[in-house]
This record gives sequence, C-alpha cells and structure tokens, in this order.
Amino acid sequence: MMMVTKRVEFCAAHKLALMNYDEKKNYEIFGKCSKGRGHGHNYVLDVTIGGKIDPITGMVYDMKALKRLLNTEIVDKLDHRDLNDSEGFLQGQVPTTENLAVAIWKALEEKVNPMKLIEVKIWETANNSVTYRGE
Amino acid sequence: MMMVTKRVEFCAAHKLALMNYDEKKNYEIFGKCSKGRGHGHNYVLDVTIGGKIDPITGMVYDMKALKRLLNTEIVDKLDHRDLNDSEGFLQGQVPTTENLAVAIWKALEEKVNPMKLIEVKIWETANNSVTYRGE
Amino acid sequence: MMMVTKRVEFCAAHKLALMNYDEKKNYEIFGKCSKGRGHGHNYVLDVTIGGKIDPITGMVYDMKALKRLLNTEIVDKLDHRDLNDSEGFLQGQVPTTENLAVAIWKALEEKVNPMKLIEVKIWETANNSVTYRGE
Amino acid sequence: MMMVTKRVEFCAAHKLALMNYDEKKNYEIFGKCSKGRGHGHNYVLDVTIGGKIDPITGMVYDMKALKRLLNTEIVDKLDHRDLNDSEGFLQGQVPTTENLAVAIWKALEEKVNPMKLIEVKIWETANNSVTYRGE
Amino acid sequence: MMMVTKRVEFCAAHKLALMNYDEKKNYEIFGKCSKGRGHGHNYVLDVTIGGKIDPITGMVYDMKALKRLLNTEIVDKLDHRDLNDSEGFLQGQVPTTENLAVAIWKALEEKVNPMKLIEVKIWETANNSVTYRGE
Amino acid sequence: MMMVTKRVEFCAAHKLALMNYDEKKNYEIFGKCSKGRGHGHNYVLDVTIGGKIDPITGMVYDMKALKRLLNTEIVDKLDHRDLNDSEGFLQGQVPTTENLAVAIWKALEEKVNPMKLIEVKIWETANNSVTYRGE
Repeated sequence: MMMVTKRVEFCAAHKLALMNYDEKKNYEIFGKCSKGRGHGHNYVLDVTIGGKIDPITGMVYDMKALKRLLNTEIVDKLDHRDLNDSEGFLQGQVPTTENLAVAIWKALEEKVNPMKLIEVKIWETANNSVTYRGE
Repeated sequence: MMMVTKRVEFCAAHKLALMNYDEKKNYEIFGKCSKGRGHGHNYVLDVTIGGKIDPITGMVYDMKALKRLLNTEIVDKLDHRDLNDSEGFLQGQVPTTENLAVAIWKALEEKVNPMKLIEVKIWETANNSVTYRGE
Repeated sequence: MMMVTKRVEFCAAHKLALMNYDEKKNYEIFGKCSKGRGHGHNYVLDVTIGGKIDPITGMVYDMKALKRLLNTEIVDKLDHRDLNDSEGFLQGQVPTTENLAVAIWKALEEKVNPMKLIEVKIWETANNSVTYRGE
Repeated sequence: MMMVTKRVEFCAAHKLALMNYDEKKNYEIFGKCSKGRGHGHNYVLDVTIGGKIDPITGMVYDMKALKRLLNTEIVDKLDHRDLNDSEGFLQGQVPTTENLAVAIWKALEEKVNPMKLIEVKIWETANNSVTYRGE
Repeated sequence: MMMVTKRVEFCAAHKLALMNYDEKKNYEIFGKCSKGRGHGHNYVLDVTIGGKIDPITGMVYDMKALKRLLNTEIVDKLDHRDLNDSEGFLQGQVPTTENLAVAIWKALEEKVNPMKLIEVKIWETANNSVTYRGE
Repeated sequence: MMMVTKRVEFCAAHKLALMNYDEKKNYEIFGKCSKGRGHGHNYVLDVTIGGKIDPITGMVYDMKALKRLLNTEIVDKLDHRDLNDSEGFLQGQVPTTENLAVAIWKALEEKVNPMKLIEVKIWETANNSVTYRGE
C-alpha cells in the first residue's frame, strides 16, 4: 500500500467555551482560548489516503481529484469562517482541534472510496497538532 | 550599526469590513476577509532594532529586555484576541495587517530608545506579509 | 510608505548551458546545472510593492488584484514549464535565477502602477536566492 | 526499537505522460504535469531505518555511513537529472512520486542491513507527499 | 483514540565520545561530533500522547498541563545546558539523540497517566531525527 | 545590481560570560546564556553579495565558488566547534551573534572581490537573528 498526503490550509476564528459554564470555569478548562470574543489560527491540514499504485499510470489516486475533494468538502466550509457558528461544520460542538479532526474524518471517509482514509492531522499552531486515524 | 531581530507570534481573530458599507460593497473591497463573523490567523511578527555593539558585552541590546517589551506591549494586547475589538490595540481602525504594522511601530518606537526602531514586519499567512520602516 | 509582499510558487525545469560552448566548458561555468537533459526546482517568488495606506480601507493595494496579477503575468507563464523554451518567458536567455528576476521585474514594473515595485526575490532552493530592486 | 530518519534533497525534472496516449488523454490523467517539455521539483526525501541502540555508543547506526549510502545510491543518481531518462533510476516507468518511492525502497532495502528499512517519504512540493513502508 | 502532539525546543551543547577511547577511535565512531570541546544544537522535540476525547470539553488532555509538564520535566533540565554533564538528565550516558529519546520517554511515561505516551521524536538538525515509541 | 544570497549552517557550542565578572553579574547581563558549561545552536547564516549580471552567462558570481569560499572561510572554522575557544575564529571575544556577524563580515569582505559584500545575517534560533551590512 502506498500512502499519499495532501496538505491544505484554512484561516478560521474560534473560541473555546461551554455556554453553561461561566467565564471563570471556562478559563480553568480552556485557558486563554476561552477569552473574550475569540481568536483565530492558520490551520494546516494533512489528509493521508492509501491504496495500490495503478501499474499503468504509476499513481495511487488522481491528486487533482483529491485537491478538489478537500477544497469542496473542507476548505470551502472552514476557510475564512468562525468555527463557533452553530449551523456550521462542527454543528455546535466546542471547536477544539480534536473535534475538528473527527468531523473532517467523517466528512471524507466515504468520499475517498475506494481508497482508504489513513490519517487526518491538523496543526493549530506550529507547536500544537492532533492526529486521528479513525480508531 | 548592528541590527537585531526578534520574532514573536500571536493568534488573533479579525474581520475586514467598514460599518457604513453593506455586505456586497465590503466583499468587493475586502473579499473573503469580510465574510460572516470573521476568521483568524497565526500572526508572525519580526521587530528589528539597531544600535552599536557594546564593546564589553558584545551585544547591541539586552535581548531578554526586548522579549519582555514585545510581550508586554504587543503580544499581551493581541494574542488570543479579536482585533476588531474597538477599545483594543487598533482603536476601531479596520484591522488590516498594514494598520497593525503602523500601530505596532507607534507602540514600540519610543520604548526601544536609545536603540533605533528599524523595521516591523508581519506575516498574516506564509504568503502575505507587510513591512514598515516608519517612513 | 508601507510595503506588502506576496509569495507565489512555481515548479519548472531548467538547464544552464550556452549552445556555442561544449559540454566540458559548460560544466566549468555552470557545474551540475549544465548536466544532461536538465533538472528542476520548486521556485519561491516574493514580490514586494509599496505605496500609501488608504485611510479608509487601511490597505495599500487590493491583495486579490495582486494575486491575480502574479498568477496571470508570472505563474501561468512559468509553472509546470521548461524555462529553456526559447519562445517562452525568458526569450532564449540562459535561465539563471538572476535572469529570471530581471524578467519578472520587467513584466511587473508597469503593471503594479500606481504602486511602486520594490523588490523581486526568488529562492531556487532553500539555500540559494537572488534579490533584485531594479537598480 | 529506535528509528532514525535522514533527510536528503535532490532537484530533478520530470514529465508525467504515457507514450501511447495522446496529449489530450495524458492531460486528463496527469493534468499540468503532462504539459510540454516537462517541469521540475526540489524533492525532499526522508529515509527511516530502525534497530537497537548499541549500549556502548548510544547509536542505532553510523549516521555518516547512512549519509554516504543515501548520497551514493539515491542523490548521485537523481540530483540534477531528468527522471524521464529511460536508462536511469526509474528504468522507463512514469516518474510519479509513487513509483519513485518504491524504486528508492528497493534500492535501499538490502543495503541498510542489518537495520530494518521502515519508511521512505518523499515531498514533491510542500503540499504533496507520498509515504511507503514496503507493505 | 485521538493523539495530540506538543512541540518544545531546547538549545544544548554536547560532545560524543567515550572516555576510554582515544581521540582517533572516537573520531572513527562519532565523526565530527567527537571533536574538541564539543558543539551544540537547537533541539526540536515532539511528544505525542493519546487518549479519548472528553465528550463535554472536546479535548483529549489539558494542553496547558502538558506544556507545564514538558517544561518542568524536560526543557528546564535540558535547555541552555551541556548534555555531557554527568550529573544531569542523561546520567553519564553518551549524549546521542537516541539516548536522549529513551531518557525523555522514561521521564514522561508515567507522568502523562492516564493518557498513553505514544511517541517521542527529536530533531537534532533539520536533516537528522530519531523516533521512539517505547517498543 | 543583482544580489545573490547563499545559506549555510553550522552547529556550535557557546557560553556568554565575561571572565572578570562573577556568575551573578554574568547572569544579570547574559541570562541563561551564561549558565554552567554552556549550550549550543544550529546557526543559520545568509551571506548576500552583489554585482552585475554577466551578459553571457546570466550569472552574478560563480555560486560553486561562493559555496567553496563559505565552507573554507566560515563553516570549516565554526561547525562542530566551541565558539569560546580563545584561539578560534572569535579570538577571545564574547561569542555573541553580533560579534560573530562582524567577524564573518571581516573574513569575507575582501575575499568576495570584485563583488560587493552586502549583508551577513545569522539566526541563532528561529526567533533571534542579527543583520550586519558593514556600516
């Protein structure tokens, strides 16, 4: 099995807080990510899919199609958005990078068929990332 | 003259729009940066100051002091904030990177005395940056 | 004056050699860049323009327009190309990064009007770059 | 088991196309990678091998020897080359990054003995990479 | 299981040599890393832990706590130090990156409880890294 | 004038302290850089030279010659060394990055003749750099 990874980026705002908690409790849990009207990040997303190399083309998957898929399903829905938008991609969940990774996994898992979705990795900053393999 | 550059980062939300313009006109001017409830970035800021090398210490400036200054005057006021906050750092200006660079210049220019403030450079994303030299 | 820098990338092939020199002489001058059927790079281009901040929009230039300009005038003509193509962008010059920088300067200088073209910087690899300011 | 990863880079040209397909069909499959006389990349290669730490030296493998091996077997054969050269490293296969990863795996697998070859990862651009683990 | 990775950096000196070997033998084994009074690096450390997402907070682990843990247990003990200090973190072992990875694993394994320590990855330079998963 | 920049790297140890000051005073001036037996960095050096483009070769300078010059005059003398070595490159000066930049300038200024040495820039870490233009 050969794995191919496509990187896309999106710029979004978010604020981590639970509506039924007060400011002090939210700060204890989420720290500075709970403050004020929110903040934002340049998110970097690496999506890895796997499959067999086509013996004629030497490719696993049409990378142009993968790029279109990631743009349509992920970037168009998250870039230049506020991730706290309750009708949006995360449907009212706290917009942590962990929840985002699971939501991206669910949005792509069937759509990369017949390839296998292997890994969703998101960097929120250069020093913080999450990795999800659907297990 | 020797120049020293200190890099700091801050994560902030912003939305580019003028209140007296409607959504359509704001989109014409600011594009996707004007959309919805805003978005955000991991801003990277390089501040360059210049001066003479102290012949004894071999240093131009106490880099610990420069770090403290940038943290107190800039990072504490911008990190994990919404730059559209009208009482904040930008005092109600449209929070473009250009306006941010001028505001950072003004906040630091006197405070680096007797060093000379040489350059304020901000990357909003890896592909967009502004550079201001106070001229 | 505020300067704004836009980064774009293009992937291209090139071979450095003079047709009227033999292989040995070309190797003396251009080293491994003269070998065989050529090689290629992921070129990174930073274009810097300067102007006054518009007091209403807080912007120097419409960055969407700058992106379109760089795509139309530069990326569409160089990306996924062989720079030695004699009818192409470099019109038969040896495709060194130096010649490329001057050709990019000429292609943009008038088109960024009324802004001022400040700098064209190209990285051929992470360790080799050229900078041209039109002087 | 401790894994060590060595990164090397090489600059090469390639063109993705099948000789028995016409230009239009090649464009459908390979997109802009099939165009004209080809293009090129700064390829980044990470080779990971695994083994036990030598209790005396504290090392898994002589990194100087690994560097020599990668230079002799890979970089000397690919750097500043055209990957479409039919007598070259890829022996006439379409020079996709996937085919390149398998060919690099085969070239190294036995030579890192008694270490185990764990992973070959290649970035064609900052946004496209492939990962092969020999399975 | 969701994995979260935290990156920290530390600047340290080291020299690779065995006291009971002479300079020539140490050079054969450790190359330029054995020379003179030693040298140093900006080490980059990625620590990956895994666990279940808390269904209320949407987080796997308190990232502020992870940062404090890495600072207390690792950075405070290694940053701006000489790794050859025999009473230090490595307790007299040869300060190879491999030995460092195992020592960091041991220092963290129990402390991230109830999370699972998944991976310790250290870059000594941009081109050399080690990865340890406790197996 | 066209400017070309060559990047090289070297790994070195250093400790910032004045011999006639005690530990407390050195800590006040140099902070954690004065501690214990020293520490180290992966230094990144960008050397920029300028000149006219040769109308035949399209090059400003033989980049192979520039690489050899930087390796002979700088990297061979600093890589895998302790910068505090009093007989070394810095001849007993405090090994600050500022002093290093001036010493590199002096070592190269005449040797790049007939080109003009434009700038020496050194990153000690990703967040701290100095720039010297010989003025």
